[in-house]
Amino acid sequence: MELDFQKTGGVVPAIIQDRRTGEVLMLGFMNAEALAQTQRNGEVVFFSRSRNKLWKKGETSGHVLKVLEMRVDCDADTLLVQVDPVGPGVCHEGYGSCFFRQLDPEGRVRIIAERTFAPEKVYAKEKSQ
Amino acid sequence: MELDFQKTGGVVPAIIQDRRTGEVLMLGFMNAEALAQTQRNGEVVFFSRSRNKLWKKGETSGHVLKVLEMRVDCDADTLLVQVDPVGPGVCHEGYGSCFFRQLDPEGRVRIIAERTFAPEKVYAKEKSQ
Repeated sequence: MELDFQKTGGVVPAIIQDRRTGEVLMLGFMNAEALAQTQRNGEVVFFSRSRNKLWKKGETSGHVLKVLEMRVDCDADTLLVQVDPVGPGVCHEGYGSCFFRQLDPEGRVRIIAERTFAPEKVYAKEKSQ
Repeated sequence: MELDFQKTGGVVPAIIQDRRTGEVLMLGFMNAEALAQTQRNGEVVFFSRSRNKLWKKGETSGHVLKVLEMRVDCDADTLLVQVDPVGPGVCHEGYGSCFFRQLDPEGRVRIIAERTFAPEKVYAKEKSQ
Protein backbone atom coordinates (compact mmCIF):
# COMPACT_ATOMS: atom_id res chain seq x y z
CA MET A 1 0.00 0.00 0.00
CA GLU A 2 0.97 3.62 -0.45
CA LEU A 3 1.38 5.79 2.60
CA ASP A 4 0.48 9.47 2.38
CA PHE A 5 3.84 11.16 2.94
CA GLN A 6 2.71 14.44 1.43
CA LYS A 7 0.41 15.58 4.21
CA THR A 8 3.37 16.28 6.52
CA GLY A 9 6.06 17.34 4.08
CA GLY A 10 7.48 13.97 3.05
CA VAL A 11 7.23 12.19 6.40
CA VAL A 12 4.63 10.40 8.48
CA PRO A 13 4.42 10.39 12.26
CA ALA A 14 5.36 7.03 13.78
CA ILE A 15 4.05 6.32 17.27
CA ILE A 16 6.29 3.93 19.19
CA GLN A 17 4.50 1.71 21.69
CA ASP A 18 5.99 -0.91 24.00
CA ARG A 19 4.09 -4.02 22.97
CA ARG A 20 4.47 -5.73 26.35
CA THR A 21 3.43 -2.90 28.65
CA GLY A 22 1.28 -0.85 26.27
CA GLU A 23 3.23 2.29 27.22
CA VAL A 24 3.66 4.90 24.49
CA LEU A 25 7.40 5.53 24.41
CA MET A 26 7.95 8.28 21.85
CA LEU A 27 6.91 9.71 18.51
CA GLY A 28 9.26 10.09 15.58
CA PHE A 29 8.88 10.71 11.87
CA MET A 30 9.67 8.43 8.96
CA ASN A 31 10.18 9.26 5.34
CA ALA A 32 9.89 6.53 2.71
CA GLU A 33 13.51 5.47 3.13
CA ALA A 34 13.33 5.33 6.94
CA LEU A 35 10.22 3.15 6.64
CA ALA A 36 11.91 0.89 4.09
CA GLN A 37 14.97 0.42 6.32
CA THR A 38 12.75 -0.21 9.34
CA GLN A 39 10.78 -2.85 7.46
CA ARG A 40 13.92 -4.45 6.02
CA ASN A 41 15.93 -4.66 9.24
CA GLY A 42 13.23 -4.92 11.90
CA GLU A 43 14.69 -2.07 13.95
CA VAL A 44 13.28 1.44 14.00
CA VAL A 45 14.87 4.11 11.78
CA PHE A 46 13.50 7.64 11.83
CA PHE A 47 14.04 10.67 9.66
CA SER A 48 15.28 13.61 11.69
CA ARG A 49 13.60 16.78 10.46
CA SER A 50 16.00 19.06 12.33
CA ARG A 51 19.12 17.31 11.04
CA ASN A 52 17.55 16.38 7.69
CA LYS A 53 18.89 12.84 7.71
CA LEU A 54 18.07 9.26 8.61
CA TRP A 55 18.56 8.42 12.25
CA LYS A 56 18.65 4.89 13.56
CA LYS A 57 17.23 4.87 17.06
CA GLY A 58 19.91 3.42 19.34
CA GLU A 59 22.86 4.08 17.03
CA THR A 60 24.74 5.75 19.89
CA SER A 61 23.07 4.34 22.97
CA GLY A 62 22.50 0.77 21.81
CA HIS A 63 18.86 1.21 22.84
CA VAL A 64 17.40 -0.05 19.58
CA LEU A 65 13.69 -0.60 19.07
CA LYS A 66 12.92 -4.07 17.73
CA VAL A 67 9.79 -4.05 15.60
CA LEU A 68 7.16 -6.60 16.57
CA GLU A 69 4.25 -5.25 14.55
CA MET A 70 3.39 -2.22 12.47
CA ARG A 71 -0.05 -0.75 11.99
CA VAL A 72 -1.26 1.93 9.61
CA ASP A 73 -4.25 4.17 10.23
CA CYS A 74 -7.41 4.71 8.19
CA ASP A 75 -5.99 7.67 6.26
CA ALA A 76 -2.64 5.95 5.66
CA ASP A 77 -0.78 8.94 7.06
CA THR A 78 0.29 7.65 10.50
CA LEU A 79 2.12 4.55 11.71
CA LEU A 80 1.84 2.73 15.01
CA VAL A 81 4.96 0.67 15.66
CA GLN A 82 4.76 -1.90 18.43
CA VAL A 83 8.23 -2.67 19.67
CA ASP A 84 10.40 -4.53 22.10
CA PRO A 85 12.66 -1.75 23.40
CA VAL A 86 16.23 -2.84 24.09
CA GLY A 87 17.82 -1.21 27.12
CA PRO A 88 16.55 0.83 30.04
CA GLY A 89 14.77 3.61 28.18
CA VAL A 90 14.22 5.49 24.95
CA CYS A 91 14.49 9.10 26.09
CA HIS A 92 17.69 11.10 25.82
CA GLU A 93 16.83 12.61 29.20
CA GLY A 94 17.15 9.22 30.87
CA TYR A 95 13.56 8.04 31.10
CA GLY A 96 11.84 4.90 29.88
CA SER A 97 9.40 6.98 27.82
CA CYS A 98 9.74 10.48 26.38
CA PHE A 99 6.31 11.23 27.89
CA PHE A 100 7.57 11.56 31.46
CA ARG A 101 5.79 14.85 32.16
CA GLN A 102 2.16 15.42 32.94
CA LEU A 103 0.52 18.58 31.60
CA ASP A 104 -2.31 19.86 33.77
CA PRO A 105 -5.29 21.91 32.52
CA GLU A 106 -3.57 25.13 33.63
CA GLY A 107 -0.53 24.34 31.50
CA ARG A 108 1.78 23.37 34.35
CA VAL A 109 4.03 20.33 33.97
CA ARG A 110 5.06 17.79 36.55
CA ILE A 111 7.56 14.97 36.17
CA ILE A 112 5.74 11.72 36.92
CA ALA A 113 8.42 9.10 36.19
CA GLU A 114 11.74 8.08 37.67
CA ARG A 115 14.90 8.13 35.59
CA THR A 116 15.86 4.64 34.45
CA PHE A 117 19.41 5.48 33.34
CA ALA A 118 22.00 8.24 33.48
CA PRO A 119 21.87 9.90 30.04
CA GLU A 120 25.33 11.48 30.31
CA LYS A 121 26.84 8.00 30.50
CA VAL A 122 24.96 6.75 27.46
CA TYR A 123 24.72 9.57 24.97
CA ALA A 124 27.53 11.25 23.22
CA LYS A 125 25.62 12.86 20.38
CA GLU A 126 22.31 11.07 19.94
CA LYS A 127 19.19 13.00 20.85
CA SER A 128 15.78 11.45 21.08
CA GLN A 129 14.28 13.46 18.26
CA MET B 1 5.06 25.60 29.75
CA GLU B 2 5.44 26.49 26.10
CA LEU B 3 4.86 23.81 23.50
CA ASP B 4 6.89 23.89 20.30
CA PHE B 5 4.20 24.47 17.67
CA GLN B 6 6.68 25.69 15.09
CA LYS B 7 8.32 22.38 14.27
CA THR B 8 5.21 21.15 12.47
CA GLY B 9 3.78 24.35 11.04
CA GLY B 10 1.74 25.63 13.96
CA VAL B 11 0.47 22.29 15.27
CA VAL B 12 1.68 19.43 17.43
CA PRO B 13 0.79 15.77 16.98
CA ALA B 14 -1.54 14.47 19.70
CA ILE B 15 -1.55 10.73 20.28
CA ILE B 16 -4.87 9.50 21.64
CA GLN B 17 -4.64 6.48 23.92
CA ASP B 18 -7.47 4.63 25.67
CA ARG B 19 -6.41 4.89 29.29
CA ARG B 20 -8.23 1.75 30.36
CA THR B 21 -7.07 -0.66 27.66
CA GLY B 22 -3.81 1.04 26.63
CA GLU B 23 -4.88 0.86 22.99
CA VAL B 24 -3.68 3.69 20.75
CA LEU B 25 -6.85 4.96 19.11
CA MET B 26 -5.78 7.69 16.69
CA LEU B 27 -3.44 10.58 16.08
CA GLY B 28 -4.62 14.11 15.44
CA PHE B 29 -3.04 17.54 15.46
CA MET B 30 -3.64 20.45 17.80
CA ASN B 31 -2.81 24.09 17.37
CA ALA B 32 -2.66 26.38 20.40
CA GLU B 33 -6.40 27.06 20.32
CA ALA B 34 -7.34 23.37 19.98
CA LEU B 35 -5.13 22.60 22.97
CA ALA B 36 -6.64 25.45 24.99
CA GLN B 37 -10.19 24.27 24.26
CA THR B 38 -9.23 20.67 25.08
CA GLN B 39 -7.75 21.75 28.40
CA ARG B 40 -10.66 24.03 29.22
CA ASN B 41 -13.46 21.58 28.43
CA GLY B 42 -11.85 18.21 29.08
CA GLU B 43 -12.87 16.84 25.68
CA VAL B 44 -10.51 16.51 22.74
CA VAL B 45 -10.50 19.21 20.06
CA PHE B 46 -8.17 18.89 17.08
CA PHE B 47 -7.11 21.25 14.34
CA SER B 48 -7.90 19.82 10.93
CA ARG B 49 -5.04 20.62 8.58
CA SER B 50 -7.02 19.69 5.48
CA ARG B 51 -10.04 21.80 6.43
CA ASN B 52 -7.97 24.46 8.22
CA LYS B 53 -10.29 24.71 11.19
CA LEU B 54 -10.90 23.42 14.68
CA TRP B 55 -12.62 20.10 14.87
CA LYS B 56 -14.19 18.73 18.01
CA LYS B 57 -13.90 14.97 17.96
CA GLY B 58 -17.42 13.59 18.27
CA GLU B 59 -19.22 16.72 17.12
CA THR B 60 -21.23 14.66 14.62
CA SER B 61 -21.04 11.16 16.02
CA GLY B 62 -21.29 11.93 19.72
CA HIS B 63 -18.16 9.83 20.20
CA VAL B 64 -16.30 12.42 22.22
CA LEU B 65 -12.97 11.73 23.87
CA LYS B 66 -12.95 12.61 27.57
CA VAL B 67 -9.51 13.65 28.71
CA LEU B 68 -8.20 11.82 31.76
CA GLU B 69 -4.55 12.89 31.57
CA MET B 70 -2.24 14.73 29.20
CA ARG B 71 1.47 14.17 28.85
CA VAL B 72 4.08 16.17 26.98
CA ASP B 73 7.30 14.74 25.62
CA CYS B 74 10.91 15.72 26.27
CA ASP B 75 11.10 18.11 23.32
CA ALA B 76 7.69 19.66 24.08
CA ASP B 77 6.53 19.03 20.53
CA THR B 78 4.20 16.04 20.98
CA LEU B 79 1.23 15.33 23.24
CA LEU B 80 -0.02 12.03 24.62
CA VAL B 81 -3.67 12.28 25.60
CA GLN B 82 -5.08 9.49 27.72
CA VAL B 83 -8.82 9.36 27.29
CA ASP B 84 -12.05 7.66 28.12
CA PRO B 85 -13.61 7.24 24.67
CA VAL B 86 -17.38 7.66 24.61
CA GLY B 87 -19.17 5.34 22.20
CA PRO B 88 -18.20 2.25 20.24
CA GLY B 89 -15.20 3.58 18.35
CA VAL B 90 -13.21 6.57 17.13
CA CYS B 91 -12.65 5.72 13.49
CA HIS B 92 -14.85 7.05 10.72
CA GLU B 93 -14.56 3.64 9.08
CA GLY B 94 -16.38 2.02 11.97
CA TYR B 95 -13.56 0.63 14.09
CA GLY B 96 -12.61 1.11 17.72
CA SER B 97 -9.17 2.40 16.71
CA CYS B 98 -8.00 4.02 13.49
CA PHE B 99 -5.08 1.55 13.53
CA PHE B 100 -7.13 -1.42 12.38
CA ARG B 101 -4.70 -2.52 9.67
CA GLN B 102 -1.44 -4.37 10.06
CA LEU B 103 1.40 -3.46 7.70
CA ASP B 104 3.75 -6.34 6.99
CA PRO B 105 7.45 -5.99 6.05
CA GLU B 106 6.58 -6.38 2.37
CA GLY B 107 4.17 -3.45 2.54
CA ARG B 108 0.96 -5.48 2.43
CA VAL B 109 -1.91 -4.55 4.72
CA ARG B 110 -4.36 -6.79 6.49
CA ILE B 111 -7.40 -5.77 8.53
CA ILE B 112 -6.97 -7.18 12.02
CA ALA B 113 -10.00 -5.76 13.85
CA GLU B 114 -13.75 -6.17 13.68
CA ARG B 115 -16.02 -3.23 13.02
CA THR B 116 -17.65 -1.98 16.21
CA PHE B 117 -20.30 0.20 14.56
CA ALA B 118 -21.82 1.01 11.19
CA PRO B 119 -20.24 4.29 10.12
CA GLU B 120 -22.95 5.19 7.60
CA LYS B 121 -25.44 5.33 10.45
CA VAL B 122 -23.26 7.58 12.58
CA TYR B 123 -21.45 9.98 10.31
CA ALA B 124 -23.00 12.60 8.16
CA LYS B 125 -19.96 14.79 7.61
CA GLU B 126 -17.41 14.10 10.30
CA LYS B 127 -14.24 12.34 9.21
CA SER B 128 -11.71 10.96 11.63
CA GLN B 129 -8.94 13.24 10.51
